[in-house]
Amino acid sequence: MDAIDKLGLATALAKARKSYQEGGIPIGAALIHHGSSTAVGDAVVLGTGHNSRIQKSSATLHGEIAALEDCGRLKAGVYQKSTMLTLNSPCLMCTGAILLYKIPRVVIGENKNWVGGEDLLKSHGVEIIVVDDEECKKLMEAFIREKPDEWNEDIGE
Amino acid sequence: MDAIDKLGLATALAKARKSYQEGGIPIGAALIHHGSSTAVGDAVVLGTGHNSRIQKSSATLHGEIAALEDCGRLKAGVYQKSTMLTLNSPCLMCTGAILLYKIPRVVIGENKNWVGGEDLLKSHGVEIIVVDDEECKKLMEAFIREKPDEWNEDIGE
Ligand SMILES: [Ca+2]
Ligand SMILES: [Ca+2]
Ligand SMILES: [Zn+2]
Ligand SMILES: [Zn+2]
Repeated sequence: MDAIDKLGLATALAKARKSYQEGGIPIGAALIHHGSSTAVGDAVVLGTGHNSRIQKSSATLHGEIAALEDCGRLKAGVYQKSTMLTLNSPCLMCTGAILLYKIPRVVIGENKNWVGGEDLLKSHGVEIIVVDDEECKKLMEAFIREKPDEWNEDIGE
Repeated sequence: MDAIDKLGLATALAKARKSYQEGGIPIGAALIHHGSSTAVGDAVVLGTGHNSRIQKSSATLHGEIAALEDCGRLKAGVYQKSTMLTLNSPCLMCTGAILLYKIPRVVIGENKNWVGGEDLLKSHGVEIIVVDDEECKKLMEAFIREKPDEWNEDIGE
């Protein structure tokens, strides 16, 4: 976790809190490019998003998918020099999206409440950093306690 | 391939052709529920969609994701009694979405032009039927020949 990772996870957490305030699932994500010759600094936030199951009746807009969607169309090489930062452990759909675009690095806010496709990511050589962040854990715990049915729906249970 | 599968694949092909006519990637998909007590017949088309990379600058609306999105929010048990019908072999993102929702059966129009996550689906016990349909093959071949850059972008290459 360097300063860029911290900014990325804080951004994901802000998106998660926005979703929670809307009555939605509090998972946010951000895709950050490690270095871009077109930016003022080295790193650049390519896109951010949050889970929109409840807000948009969406079965596919998880935090990570929403962040990838927010990025628009990118060339393969851009994904391959980026980090996905996400509030919690990516599910199999989001794991598959990370593998499709060969995103090499994933920062996970917390995985105490639920574990998704981390083993599959690792088996493909993706670097995983689990921050075990207290704020991320508290937010996820609160949502799962308050709306267990919506949470189960989101993880296909 | 029964009559319902044929209807489903024909529906996916119609969506693919619509996308192709719009200048987009010609991949369509449909999710069909095997049996619904609320429908007149046994089977019901829950949702359909097509790849919208070019039309919507979307990095996540592959045919299968678009079809899942078109379904809106469904309970876990509905996915678990459904078949995903898709023009070609699902990529890792779409494979992950199928696994997330435990969709037990996937009908693939053709996999001669490209193979995605079929092995991963099989390792999770998903039934795969590859139709090797001539119309699906011709449409994919034509697109890959005409717009190789867009196709590579779609598969993360
Ligand atoms: Ca945004
Ligand atoms: Ca539709
Ligand atoms: Zn997910
Ligand atoms: Zn796909």
